[in-house]
Parts: sequence; C-alpha cells; structure tokens
Amino acid sequence: MKFQVSSSLTYEVRSASTLILSIHALRTPTQAVLEEVFTTEPYLKMEELTSVSGQNRFVRLEVNEPMNLTVSYKATVDTEFELIGQDQLEAVPVVQLDGEVIPFLFPSRYCQSDKLYRLAQSKFGHIEDVYSRVVAITDWIYRNVEYLSGSTTAQTSAYDTIIERAGVCRDFAHLGIALCRALTIPARYFTGYAYQLNPPDFHACFEAFIGGQWILFDATRLAPLNGLVKIATGRDAADAAVASIFGNVTGTSMQVDCQVLDPGFVAFTQRKARTRALSVPG
Amino acid sequence: MKFQVSSSLTYEVRSASTLILSIHALRTPTQAVLEEVFTTEPYLKMEELTSVSGQNRFVRLEVNEPMNLTVSYKATVDTEFELIGQDQLEAVPVVQLDGEVIPFLFPSRYCQSDKLYRLAQSKFGHIEDVYSRVVAITDWIYRNVEYLSGSTTAQTSAYDTIIERAGVCRDFAHLGIALCRALTIPARYFTGYAYQLNPPDFHACFEAFIGGQWILFDATRLAPLNGLVKIATGRDAADAAVASIFGNVTGTSMQVDCQVLDPGFVAFTQRKARTRALSVPG
Amino acid sequence: MKFQVSSSLTYEVRSASTLILSIHALRTPTQAVLEEVFTTEPYLKMEELTSVSGQNRFVRLEVNEPMNLTVSYKATVDTEFELIGQDQLEAVPVVQLDGEVIPFLFPSRYCQSDKLYRLAQSKFGHIEDVYSRVVAITDWIYRNVEYLSGSTTAQTSAYDTIIERAGVCRDFAHLGIALCRALTIPARYFTGYAYQLNPPDFHACFEAFIGGQWILFDATRLAPLNGLVKIATGRDAADAAVASIFGNVTGTSMQVDCQVLDPGFVAFTQRKARTRALSVPG
Amino acid sequence: MKFQVSSSLTYEVRSASTLILSIHALRTPTQAVLEEVFTTEPYLKMEELTSVSGQNRFVRLEVNEPMNLTVSYKATVDTEFELIGQDQLEAVPVVQLDGEVIPFLFPSRYCQSDKLYRLAQSKFGHIEDVYSRVVAITDWIYRNVEYLSGSTTAQTSAYDTIIERAGVCRDFAHLGIALCRALTIPARYFTGYAYQLNPPDFHACFEAFIGGQWILFDATRLAPLNGLVKIATGRDAADAAVASIFGNVTGTSMQVDCQVLDPGFVAFTQRKARTRALSVPG
Repeated sequence: MKFQVSSSLTYEVRSASTLILSIHALRTPTQAVLEEVFTTEPYLKMEELTSVSGQNRFVRLEVNEPMNLTVSYKATVDTEFELIGQDQLEAVPVVQLDGEVIPFLFPSRYCQSDKLYRLAQSKFGHIEDVYSRVVAITDWIYRNVEYLSGSTTAQTSAYDTIIERAGVCRDFAHLGIALCRALTIPARYFTGYAYQLNPPDFHACFEAFIGGQWILFDATRLAPLNGLVKIATGRDAADAAVASIFGNVTGTSMQVDCQVLDPGFVAFTQRKARTRALSVPG
Repeated sequence: MKFQVSSSLTYEVRSASTLILSIHALRTPTQAVLEEVFTTEPYLKMEELTSVSGQNRFVRLEVNEPMNLTVSYKATVDTEFELIGQDQLEAVPVVQLDGEVIPFLFPSRYCQSDKLYRLAQSKFGHIEDVYSRVVAITDWIYRNVEYLSGSTTAQTSAYDTIIERAGVCRDFAHLGIALCRALTIPARYFTGYAYQLNPPDFHACFEAFIGGQWILFDATRLAPLNGLVKIATGRDAADAAVASIFGNVTGTSMQVDCQVLDPGFVAFTQRKARTRALSVPG
Repeated sequence: MKFQVSSSLTYEVRSASTLILSIHALRTPTQAVLEEVFTTEPYLKMEELTSVSGQNRFVRLEVNEPMNLTVSYKATVDTEFELIGQDQLEAVPVVQLDGEVIPFLFPSRYCQSDKLYRLAQSKFGHIEDVYSRVVAITDWIYRNVEYLSGSTTAQTSAYDTIIERAGVCRDFAHLGIALCRALTIPARYFTGYAYQLNPPDFHACFEAFIGGQWILFDATRLAPLNGLVKIATGRDAADAAVASIFGNVTGTSMQVDCQVLDPGFVAFTQRKARTRALSVPG
Repeated sequence: MKFQVSSSLTYEVRSASTLILSIHALRTPTQAVLEEVFTTEPYLKMEELTSVSGQNRFVRLEVNEPMNLTVSYKATVDTEFELIGQDQLEAVPVVQLDGEVIPFLFPSRYCQSDKLYRLAQSKFGHIEDVYSRVVAITDWIYRNVEYLSGSTTAQTSAYDTIIERAGVCRDFAHLGIALCRALTIPARYFTGYAYQLNPPDFHACFEAFIGGQWILFDATRLAPLNGLVKIATGRDAADAAVASIFGNVTGTSMQVDCQVLDPGFVAFTQRKARTRALSVPG
C-alpha cells in the first residue's frame, strides 16, 4: 500500500544548537521509501546518523546562530503488511530469543516493567495464549485509560499512567510495553505516520515479539494498524523522540500528514485484530 | 596489569527456567582474557549471546527441571589503562558525537536525567571544564549519599537516591550517570570485578564520554579505578544485571574474588583523579 | 461484647529519647474500658496527651538514659456495635457534613486521593448506592492486592500499592481510604486489637462516613469486624502509629493479644457485610 | 499594623455544587478583624464551618443550579507581630510539646518528611541552634529552588520539589515544612494576604514551632514577613486550600489585594531575620 507522508516543523532557535530529528520513514524489507525530500529553511548542514540504538534514521542538524528554522519532510512510502493467523503466533521462550530481542524484555525509562509483575500477572496471567494476552492488555488499556490531550508531559511514564488513567498515544504505548515485558513478552515502542489519525499528528503505538515476529498493537484504536508508516522503533520514547534538542530552542509549530495513494484501502483495526495479527517484519 | 577474577553463584531452581548471566570478563582492545573457565554443576546447555544492547558477554542457561545449580567462573585477565592528562579531556559537542554514543545521552530506567536538568545545572553548570564537572559530580555523590548496604532494592533509581541519600555502588553509579546526561555528557553503567573491594562483591561504577574516550569514575571510592576488570557496560543496571532470571529461581549464595597477579600494583584512586583520568578504551 | 486485650513491646534505647505510644484502647460512647493496666519496666515518667489530631490516647514516655525498655498494656474492654440496614446508609452530601468530618475528604500522607479521581470514578463511579460503593472498593482491594508480610515499609502509600499490588493491613486500609476520598466519601484510618487475627498483631482497617455514621470496613478480611477493639482513628498511619520514636531506639519485640471474654461470639465478617453494616459510633 | 485586604473570585458553576472557601482573615489574639464583608453574587446560602483541622474560617457555599458566581471578600485587619531575640528561640524537646503541636511533626500529603531524614540531617544537622537551623533551611530553599510560575500543579509535593528544583510559594512552603519535620521541628503551612507581593495573589509560607511559639518563615523572600495577614494554618495545602470544590465548577478569575492603612510600614524581611524572628502568636 502506497502512502504519501509529510511533516513540517518550525523552531525558534535562540543560540547555537544541535537538533536530532526522527521524522524520516524507515527503510525496511517491507517498507520501501520510493522517494523522499528533506529540507531545511534556511539551508543547514545535516547528517544522517547510523548505529544508534533501536531502528531509526536520526538526522542531526547543526544550527550555528539564532534563527527561525523550518524543517520539512515528504515521502512516498510503500508498505507491506502480512496478516498472520493466531496459529502462527506462539510465545517464544526466553531460551530461544535472539540476542537482539532480549533487551526488549528489560525495563526502560518510561516502561518500568519491574514494578508491574504482580499487576500484570494478576490481570493477564491466566490467559494462556500469548497473542490473546497482548490483545487483552491492549483492550484493558483502551477501556481503563482515557485519551486526553495535554494530560501528560514528556516525563510521564507507565508507572504514572497506571495511577492517573489518562494520557496520549505515547502513554498508551508505554503502558502496553511495560505490561508485556512484565509478562516476559518482548515489546518495543513504535513511532510513525498514521493514516486517518484525527487530528493529524505523529503517532505512537507498540510492537510485541510473538511467533518470532514483531506484531503491531495500538491501544488507542485511533488509526488502522495497516495505515501506519514506521519512522522508528526503540525501547521507549527516550529512543525514538521526534526531536531531541540540545540548545535554546522552542518548537513553534508542527504539521503532519499521511494519505493513501492507492485506491481500495481496507482498514485493519485493532478491534478486528482478534484472531489475526499484523506483522511488521522490518 | 594481570588479574585473576572468579565468581561462584548458587541457585535453587524450582521449575524449568532460563538464566541470563553476565559474569564473564569482557574482551576489548585493552582487556585481554588470557584464560577462563565457566562451568555449571550440574552440566547445562549454555549459549553465549551476541548483539544485545551494550557491551557484554551474556550467557544463557536453560534449566529444564528443579535443581540446585552452581555457576562458576574463573579467568586471568590482562587490562591496560591509559592515563590521560586533563588537556586531552575536552567536551565533545553533540554535533560531533558518534551515533553509537548518542543513546547514552538519553534517560533510562534507573537514570531519569530528564528530571534532573535544573538540579544538575544549578550544582555543576558553573564548572566550565567537562572533566572537572564530572569529578565534581562524583565528589558530590560521595559526600551527599551514604553507602549503606541493604538500603535499596532492584527498583531503586537515581530519582530515589536524590531524595533518600543512601544506596550501594549501583545507586551511586546511576546517580552519576543521570547527572552527567542531564548536562549533555554521555554516560554509561559499568559492572566488573574490583580489586581491594571489601567485602568482595561485583562492583558498579560509571563511564563518561570525554575527549572522545570513555573515562572511568567511581563515586563510591571503594576500589582503585585501575583495579577494575570490566564485565559489561550498558545504559544502566537494566542492561547489565549480573543475572536476569526467568522462572522460579532463588539465588542462595554468591562469592566473588579479584586478585592482582603482577607485583607492584599502584592504586590509582578516584581521589587522585583530579587532573589525570583513567581511560577505558574498550 | 467483652474483650481482653494486651500488648507488650520491648525497645533497646541507646540515648535519651522520647516515645509516643498509641496502644491504649480508646474510650468512646460505645467502647468502655472496664479496667486497664499500663506499665513500663523500668518505671518511667509518662503522660497521656490530649488534643492531638484524630482520636487516640497517646502516651508519651521520656527515657533519660540508655536502657532496655518493656512497655506493657492490658485491658478489659466492652464494645458495642450496631448493625445498620442499608436503607439507613445514605450518602451525606458535602454541604451537610460536619466541619469535623470534612478533613477526612482531603488527601493525606499515605492516601493521595487527589491522584486517584479518574481511577476511582471509572471503577466505582457507576455504583449508585454509597454503601455498595465502599463495599465494592473493599472487595476490589481484597481481590487485587496480595497480602504479603514484609512487602512494604513505613513509607509505602496508596499510590505505591495501586502499582505494586501487595501490602499488609496498613496498606489495604490506606488504599481503601484514598479511593473513598477520591469519590468524596469521608474516610479515616482505624487501628486496634483484633480477635482471631492470625498471627496476632495490631490491626489496621478503615472507616467511611455513611448515613451520618462511621462505618467499619476491612479489605483484608483477616478478622471479624465485630472482633475489633479500637485504639485510635486518624487521617492515616501518620496520625495513628503504634509508636512514634524520637531518639536512638530500636524495637526488639512485640506481642499482641485479643481474646473474647463473653461466650457466644458470632463473627460479623466483611464478607457478610453486604446489606448490613457495622457502625462504630465512637 | 492595619491592612486592608480583599479578594474576588469568579466561578463558572455547571451543576449543583458545594464550595468550601478559605479567604477570610483569621481572628487570633494578635490579629483582629476590624470589619469585613463577604458577599456572593448571586446571593447564596452560606455557612461558616467550625472545628475542622488546622486554624481557619472555612465558608461553605451551596450552589443549587448552574450559574456564574462571584465571591468577594474585603476586610480591615489589625495585626500585631512580636519581634523575638534569638536568645528566646530555643528548641522545644518533644517531651515538652503540647499535644496540639505534635501532629505538626508528622508527615502529611505534600510534606513527606519521613523520606527526608538523611538529607535534612546531612545538610542542616550540624547547626546547633534551632532558629539558625530553620533560617538555614529557608536560605537553602531560596538558593536551590527556582521560583517559576506554572512549573507545578496541585499534586506537586516536597518530594518532587527536591528533585525538580522549581516551584511556587506553596512548593517552597511544603519543602520548608518537610525539612523541619524531618529534623523534629514542628512546622505548619500558612496562607494569607501579603503586602507588596508582586503580582498580587494569595501567598503561602510556613511557621515553625521554636521557643514555645510559632515563628514565621518565607523561603520565597517575595513579601515582608510583617506584611502578612493570616487566612489559615494547617498541616499543608490539603488543609488550607483557598477553595475546595465539589462539583462541576471552573475558576474563571481571581483578584487579590493587600494594602497597608497605617503610615510608616517598615518591612521586616526574611533576609533581616537573622537573629530576630517574627512571632505569630495566633
């Protein structure tokens, strides 16, 4: 399915600063970036970083003097999802996990799974099938956490959300990840562009490692799972922030868009994902 | 300098379980493992994991039935440190950091640097020289946090230690890392064997990235910096736990030892590290 | 119903110290202390405090020199409970609450009701009848929090228990209080002696203000509601600690006992308290 | 010294609600309310509550239907402060404290003194004289916490402020109280009108019990100590909120004013309070 995604961010830069941005569509075996344009106004030296944690295409910008900065990205992306039946979605025991997957069992800044063992076990421990278990986690978050713009900050973590029961997509994702890890299911944070997300914005959800694949879950139910274009994955938002800023800089505006280019898009929603899952091989 | 290090851990395993252990001395350009023996009693299938986050030599053990398990490790390790003068210890601006180093600027489970910007800035922001700044952080922790065995748990983080002012080596390290990152200095967790640590145990301290190198700091002052044999580095203890256990398992005992094999060991302590630093190129 | 209650506490006092103890049975219109003996060994000057917050009979002991101290209390107490039908248990609107009751709507050290509005509302807000609502809170705690000796400390609060889902009677009480207050139901902490509590110890539970009376609830289900002899009530354990110690003192042992003196005790348990409640007019 | 104080608050009430307001000047032996007017527009039934915790003159308003509500208060108040020399400011040992003062040693919702023993002891424990000790606490807060409007919420506590190092008057007061209690110095929250506070607002600071009297401290240094007109004292802001609202109500505006009516006001500031203190006998 082909998507056209775009984003435009403006900043007021008040001193020499460095920005690390994560807004490029990721290139994976199942997500091809057919064409893309990344520009800054004014023109700035930039560099794509490699080898950082998680999967991403961090771009580093050096701003040497105060300015109003506009960063724009536009791409055509072809994504390919695979629908997988529940029979292929078995739990992978720790003893068979790849070394690369194991860190996604560990607690991280916003996903304090080590504090949630008892809660996770008591709420979801009785569900035998691992896929059903993560679906149940996702449903529980949807029912028990209120989606409330502005209710949380960049410091809010899964721990807080369990108490306060409100948050945005980032918080829903962190809680899902933390509960999975507490049950020894590897889970990671996903950021991307999302078709039919309203109001348009960057989106966050999560992937759990089941049946040897990363399976997509979205506890917010705000966008179809097959309408997502991946920007990055990481342990949590600390690894995959849209922008990490070093210097005296204020974001002044943000515009995000995601459109389907092919006709005949049929939404595969979290609600439908009862016995069949969406795999994101990348 | 040659060291003989050893550790022996016993577990009561009550059900089929998986253990991921991190007790092997790391192999780095400046730390050679001359010989080593790793055994389990009874004999178990084991596997060294590669490619997980951080630097380490995780060993995964599969235990299929209840048993009393003993894990033993013994190695002769040759480490090489480099003393670096303060003139070579300049700050590396974010714009010049390698992609691999950047994640060590981000907050992590036990090092919530994002909550400590103002505190770090007000206490250490006035210190121009970056090396002196991290020395000041280390001194501040030494003076303001009481080393108190048993005062903290596996859930204790830098956030808690700022309040409660007590902890063990792990907590001292987490606080040092969090304060560095809050000041945009990359920092990571270090675990290892430590000569002259009393009582003998695994040790934890931290490395900060200064002058293009990872420099060792130990806010506990409990062991000479040049008496350390590295086991692992990672973002924090979540990445570098001595043992991650999946199953019904209880640790029942632990013995750790570290001896110098060469004559003429001259301790280079944190206290001495005022204008010259110990680099750990590995 | 007549009870004989007793407690004996021993302390190692290492410097001049002051102890404030709360182990006397309270005197209320419905709880008569028929006889009581309070002794210290060695003999110490002591004073009963009046006018402190909550209801209690704090005793202050001055210890001028290092010693091993034994404090003993024994009393015969006659308690009178009233069983009230659900039809008399209506909510009292804030506008009709006595000034003395209103502080029990406010958050306190261990009962951060201000953080739990959304959670309380979503879990219990749909239950119309206020008595059924508090019964539901009590049931929910019983089902969702594990009673686990040693799992918490004197710093543990309702906030922590929501996350960690384990605790002792004190933690169960704090959580019950916090959830009530979050729903604008006045609630207070209760400590006392408890018949059939096993192992014997001081007990804690809570009272909610319903139908113009303080009604007793015990989310632990560990002792019959009508087997309780009140020592104190307060906003939370900060107001009603068994012992507040100022000085270098360590508790070395504690023995607590509670026996029924009358024949024919019929336990009225939390489980039975579905449509009829136990009032504690004191 | 005579002051004219006034406040005007407007609310949008969207359903039947109850408001408990604390904006009346307190009547104490040293603070006379010479005249006062309290009005609501439209006219509402109101009631002054007695006997609630702390010292205050809570007014309860019942609003039976949706409306725009304006509450106004205006008073002429004569306050009398006493300047006390440091020689009269000795610590009162716990054994000599009145029962009424003892609860102000206990931790409360926003003043978790039980978590701060070690920090308080290490920073201020070496200061022998109790008055100097509280002055040092006040100075330390002034130097280490940034006054930053909007940086905190109604849930922020002393615990958070220790970490985040920013807050408003309420947060400064909570931290001062918590540190005092951690050192066994009774301390309580003070709200009032403040002369020369800029921008005008309700103010909060704290009192510590020294030399048998409640002594006033203001870590913000934003208003003269002798320019304060007391509204209430309590354990913390949970006891002395300007408004506690039960119902669907939004505050829409607030105006506060405090003027000196006598000529010749000479400011006694926190900065001057080195060897002489301001007592508030009320």
